[in-house]
Amino acid sequence: MTLTELATPAVVINAARLDRNIDRMQAAADARRLRLRPHAKTHKSPAIARIQIARGAVGICCAKIGEAEVFAADGIADIRLPYPINPVNAERVLRLLEQTHLSFIVDDLAVAREWSARMNAAGLSVDVLVKVDVGFHRCGIDPDRPDAAEVVARIAELPGLNFRGLLSHAGHAYGATSEDETAAVAAAEARLLARLANEIEQQGVKCEEISVGATPTARFSVQQEGLTEIRPGNYVYYDRTQVGLGAAAWSDCALTVLAMVVSTPAPDRIILDCGSKTLSNDMARGFSETRGHGVVFTDLEATRPDEDLVIERLSEEHANVRVLSGAHRLRTGDLVRVLPNHSCVVSNLVDAVWVEREGGTVEPLPVAARGRIA
Amino acid sequence: MTLTELATPAVVINAARLDRNIDRMQAAADARRLRLRPHAKTHKSPAIARIQIARGAVGICCAKIGEAEVFAADGIADIRLPYPINPVNAERVLRLLEQTHLSFIVDDLAVAREWSARMNAAGLSVDVLVKVDVGFHRCGIDPDRPDAAEVVARIAELPGLNFRGLLSHAGHAYGATSEDETAAVAAAEARLLARLANEIEQQGVKCEEISVGATPTARFSVQQEGLTEIRPGNYVYYDRTQVGLGAAAWSDCALTVLAMVVSTPAPDRIILDCGSKTLSNDMARGFSETRGHGVVFTDLEATRPDEDLVIERLSEEHANVRVLSGAHRLRTGDLVRVLPNHSCVVSNLVDAVWVEREGGTVEPLPVAARGRIA
Repeated sequence: MTLTELATPAVVINAARLDRNIDRMQAAADARRLRLRPHAKTHKSPAIARIQIARGAVGICCAKIGEAEVFAADGIADIRLPYPINPVNAERVLRLLEQTHLSFIVDDLAVAREWSARMNAAGLSVDVLVKVDVGFHRCGIDPDRPDAAEVVARIAELPGLNFRGLLSHAGHAYGATSEDETAAVAAAEARLLARLANEIEQQGVKCEEISVGATPTARFSVQQEGLTEIRPGNYVYYDRTQVGLGAAAWSDCALTVLAMVVSTPAPDRIILDCGSKTLSNDMARGFSETRGHGVVFTDLEATRPDEDLVIERLSEEHANVRVLSGAHRLRTGDLVRVLPNHSCVVSNLVDAVWVEREGGTVEPLPVAARGRIA
Repeated sequence: MTLTELATPAVVINAARLDRNIDRMQAAADARRLRLRPHAKTHKSPAIARIQIARGAVGICCAKIGEAEVFAADGIADIRLPYPINPVNAERVLRLLEQTHLSFIVDDLAVAREWSARMNAAGLSVDVLVKVDVGFHRCGIDPDRPDAAEVVARIAELPGLNFRGLLSHAGHAYGATSEDETAAVAAAEARLLARLANEIEQQGVKCEEISVGATPTARFSVQQEGLTEIRPGNYVYYDRTQVGLGAAAWSDCALTVLAMVVSTPAPDRIILDCGSKTLSNDMARGFSETRGHGVVFTDLEATRPDEDLVIERLSEEHANVRVLSGAHRLRTGDLVRVLPNHSCVVSNLVDAVWVEREGGTVEPLPVAARGRIA
């Protein structure tokens, strides 16, 4: 099948861009002898995870146990869950440990003690890292707590847990307003983790790993000292937000939505068949223009957005496009591409994406771990 | 299985509330001898569609052909697509016509002519309604165009199309700032459609149907003259937005997300395991408070939100909850319920919802038409 034969809307992955994105991030990690462990949340595809690993990734990350179950069943041998997995899920974790090398994070001494008891009862042990809040203020131990190093040392000595080191996610980099600010976030993150690791080592506990992860900071994180691992996820596809944050060019973006003009009710308004059920309602982040629900490419090569078109409103199945000039040349039935604000959530909305190869042929690729919320 | 045994997060449907919502809307339509044709986008479940039809609904609506294919394959005998289906999909439409009584909308004379040619070529005809823009400014013919009635009359005379009448969606009612404003939208919609129908009849074309649809306006639409059909969808589950718009009470909301506290990093912050992958990033609408990504019920009966808790930020897998008082009693592992801002998009994120019966037992219900974007 070819691109223009697809029923629309359709989520399309440009194979050449995907390939190049995987290679570039691996090369950036290799150049600094950092381990690359991509977060699989963006593609949710064991097939793409195997490509990443074949190029040099040490394993993958998943957020939820349900995702790890899909990748482990497919033979992915090393899976990290940078998520505060609750001990109520101990049975599923024990089953996963039979299938794959699993590790996860803890950010709470009481929870860590419960995991220790569960693992001891099973006669097993599991690799854990302690999550550190480096400024995003989501999960993680506050490194400025006077007892931060002591809490980590307490966790590290618990039987049944193999303490591996520290892990962070600088999600606040998505709010950066300049390249310099992103660089500063990455530098501060590395400094903060190094300081805490040093304090922990003074308590006699060694941090074998210091792991950071986010696509916008990745290019700066590889320049820092003391890190052992990076965990970007979005870089396989990129999206409008990553372009806005300077992490990618339009021509790097591998995921687009092929959409059709289904109504042209006014000179300054066209309706596309891709609504929030395809694009999600996630808004863009970036240093400059973030209006609208993605950007529209009227050329199907997807190299430069049509700046006359702003997706100003989404319903579930419609995109309301405002034509800034008040006059457009599009007709009902015309095809366009939309680059979403956030690609990770778009692949989660479909059972399969369409991989597009040179010459325009397309083939389906299942999003095998889609919708695994628990 | 019982509710508290579910892996979290989980999308839960309260069977008693669902049942009551279906009955009440049917009774409201029946009282005015209006046909009720629910939009199935909210539940995407043939099982629930069959309940609606058993109680008196004349059929259902779907947005996309892919959804209609699921419901038709399940034996739903009357399906309307209030969506500007493009003639490029004629083959799929012809196959659907063999399985079910299908109707759809047109809002463009050129597109209608193309459909007419396609149907003629197949030796068939299809029921169509003309979509009218009653103020939402999405699809639809502008009724204030001087030639509006003439365009509809031209469409009505095309061979291969059985013109049934007019159809509208007052989506702008979601932006109403008071009950009176919602009532005014419903009244204006009915007046506008009646005026246009009258103008069309002066051209010798009869409108057998005048169909309106939206949950916030439904209670006012049933009081209008001249309508033949209402098409609300969201009322089966309702959600925070419908409560905000006065269309439902908290205790009417049938869909909630069972979630777990997975981290308690600060006295004023707790983290739940339901992120945008479960709740979506859709924001709330309503007359008053619309902050946050849904509301939290700390009592599992889900009768009154805990106003101390605001879901101020979602990541894909985390909800950052701000504790306004700066002190909470929740502990890691505790269960809460979240009422989403928008229930339709939540059911689209999971392969199955859990139907909860009295006594707390739960059983899975497939969201069979989930993810059918095309």
